[in-house]
Amino acid sequence: MASVSAGSSLAGLRVVEIGTSVAAPYGAQVLGDLGAEVIKVERHGTGDDARQWLPPEWEGRSVAFLSFNRNKKSVVLDYKTGRGRELLEELVASADVLIQNLRPGSLAKAGFTWERLRELNPRLIYCEMSGYGHTGPRAGQPAYDPMVQAYSGIVSITGGEDGDPARVPVSLLDMGTGMWAVVGIYEALRRRDATGRGSHVQPSLLQTALTWLTAPLMGVAAGGAAPKRLGSGYRATVPSGAFPTSDGHVFLQAGNNDTWHRLLEALDARELRDREGFGSNADRVRHRNPVNVALSQHTVKFTTAEVLDRLGPTLVPHSAVHTVDQALEDEQVRAIGQIVPLEHPGIPGFRVVNLPLTFDGGYPPHQGAPPELGADTRSVLASLGLGEQDIDSLFADGTAAGRGTPDAVKH
Amino acid sequence: MASVSAGSSLAGLRVVEIGTSVAAPYGAQVLGDLGAEVIKVERHGTGDDARQWLPPEWEGRSVAFLSFNRNKKSVVLDYKTGRGRELLEELVASADVLIQNLRPGSLAKAGFTWERLRELNPRLIYCEMSGYGHTGPRAGQPAYDPMVQAYSGIVSITGGEDGDPARVPVSLLDMGTGMWAVVGIYEALRRRDATGRGSHVQPSLLQTALTWLTAPLMGVAAGGAAPKRLGSGYRATVPSGAFPTSDGHVFLQAGNNDTWHRLLEALDARELRDREGFGSNADRVRHRNPVNVALSQHTVKFTTAEVLDRLGPTLVPHSAVHTVDQALEDEQVRAIGQIVPLEHPGIPGFRVVNLPLTFDGGYPPHQGAPPELGADTRSVLASLGLGEQDIDSLFADGTAAGRGTPDAVKH
Repeated sequence: MASVSAGSSLAGLRVVEIGTSVAAPYGAQVLGDLGAEVIKVERHGTGDDARQWLPPEWEGRSVAFLSFNRNKKSVVLDYKTGRGRELLEELVASADVLIQNLRPGSLAKAGFTWERLRELNPRLIYCEMSGYGHTGPRAGQPAYDPMVQAYSGIVSITGGEDGDPARVPVSLLDMGTGMWAVVGIYEALRRRDATGRGSHVQPSLLQTALTWLTAPLMGVAAGGAAPKRLGSGYRATVPSGAFPTSDGHVFLQAGNNDTWHRLLEALDARELRDREGFGSNADRVRHRNPVNVALSQHTVKFTTAEVLDRLGPTLVPHSAVHTVDQALEDEQVRAIGQIVPLEHPGIPGFRVVNLPLTFDGGYPPHQGAPPELGADTRSVLASLGLGEQDIDSLFADGTAAGRGTPDAVKH
Repeated sequence: MASVSAGSSLAGLRVVEIGTSVAAPYGAQVLGDLGAEVIKVERHGTGDDARQWLPPEWEGRSVAFLSFNRNKKSVVLDYKTGRGRELLEELVASADVLIQNLRPGSLAKAGFTWERLRELNPRLIYCEMSGYGHTGPRAGQPAYDPMVQAYSGIVSITGGEDGDPARVPVSLLDMGTGMWAVVGIYEALRRRDATGRGSHVQPSLLQTALTWLTAPLMGVAAGGAAPKRLGSGYRATVPSGAFPTSDGHVFLQAGNNDTWHRLLEALDARELRDREGFGSNADRVRHRNPVNVALSQHTVKFTTAEVLDRLGPTLVPHSAVHTVDQALEDEQVRAIGQIVPLEHPGIPGFRVVNLPLTFDGGYPPHQGAPPELGADTRSVLASLGLGEQDIDSLFADGTAAGRGTPDAVKH
């Protein structure tokens, strides 16, 4: 692996991830992006569930796995056997952070309670994720991002006004919980810098969901009605949303009369200016549907490119509604340099989406592509002081697996 | 204000926020939640734009403002005048972090470039947010969360299969960028702990959006087609999504035949088991619409409560599709203790949604409710060494405003 910028404050720190799917793998990936050594402990044979989520694939490897596991080492270790458990204990003793999102209670059942972890390493920061939080009647239940979107109220407010409820189609709870894990781990690291002691950090999908819903929940707590689905619209401003063009959609918004008049001018739609009930934003909010229909009848006369040309000089907030392939090739997206090549031994042209942050103008450097299953078992066991022969015998008895053992699959 | 837990690593650090709307206010609120002193510098008369976003309101105050501004002090200061600029320079010199999301370039135009800020305080961490990133043809353009959702491709994949594109109805780019700011600031603080020097951290809404889209973008980079809208559905699993009941919707998912059969059993829908084209998940993905229609004909025979009762013991992943008011009153949501009372001088029964994290089992303590405009101007100016008379004359000539001056509005 390439060396990490000396600038990173996480360089030299070891993170052990016992993660699967998205939340813990993503949180650990962010720590690796920021310079930590991340050791991903995986199951024999299949490893992280996300390795099997095909299609979509890239040279036979799962795009989901590739998205959330760069800058890591992969170790295959059966920590439910006696010797395997000892090795995980040694790994934990050598680590700064342990992050996991197994089914609630399952790591404790394998012998790794917070009490035991603290005994093994009083400086350890233990980030334990759950679906529904660590207390309450559902604390022990597994959960998935879409189910918790539904449980928390997010699904009820997503989708068309007259249509069925929809899901937010990005991993806002899984990836979001990974981000909150990173925030909690940084705070715990600074506490440890001051005190020498580790902490127990517990994020969850449900808590992450309620935080996304902060404003709607507080609106209801204040006595307001539960928000309804508004499609691409916005409760307090009309027009705001995606409007049809002859070849797609354009997103636009006019929150006050000055902007509304400039919008109508640009679209040759002056006639709407004096229409009954369209006179102020408050009027337009009351007549949401007629305003949207009337405006759509004008936007649809033009191509998307024509609408963008007409709105360009007006200061009316607007945007193309890009498809994901259009976004990937967009000039501004290219200019910010966030999507970059990363060398992968089996994927020519491999690219990744960098952290959405720069430090003093630059993205942090990468350590390596997402690892093949068990690619680093030998080197990580060697870092615990094991010799070649010890490792060979662990491979032979199935406690560990890696390159060259039949139990390790190719990807 | 109440004292912060001695445990917080941010206690004693000063954050200056020149923020408006959501992204910078939210990032600064998280730092305040975690123990920093946050000083919010606001405009005369109106302050943060979000103070005017009514409805929804709570005792006359904007719910949006209340959602993103607890644990802060409010200072009204006109830093575009000579004396006001000097005072902001002194405030910056006394600070550890400056976070801002004004229109790109506008703080620099007022005299606060990164070069000047570094001169004033070499230890300063400067978090400068933008809409479209800090390079490229759109670097100077303002942006709003829904416009960047459209630009990045998120809107194109949100909403019903046959309906119009929709918006994600939570602030995933504004709040998300605030979260990335916090990650960047923590990393910069640890770098400063090691080197004594500050950093320039630059997140943006567009970068945040591309990160949410990591997997879809990598799928397209791998040669796949751009993803389409699927409502509440999931590309690789059928059934998965919100299904109608006689009184609402229920969310359920069956990713393999074992789960599918248990689902059919529980809903008295065994007849679908042998239907042509419904035999395996791969078959069902190919026949997405017929499967969803057929299953809906069964779910709609029951109330939501009946479906939940029937699925409870089955291990089929499922959830109620709660509305936001149902979520607020839910037993599990209450049990995790994330929504808590916070004393507010003008809002009886005020409640907030805590950080979605606990440390050693507890949420960090709060410092105070969202401040009224200019509530802390006097005490913050006094912390810079100004006497009562100096402050009176700044209030008199309009450089500053606060409690008891006509320029400060009540909320």
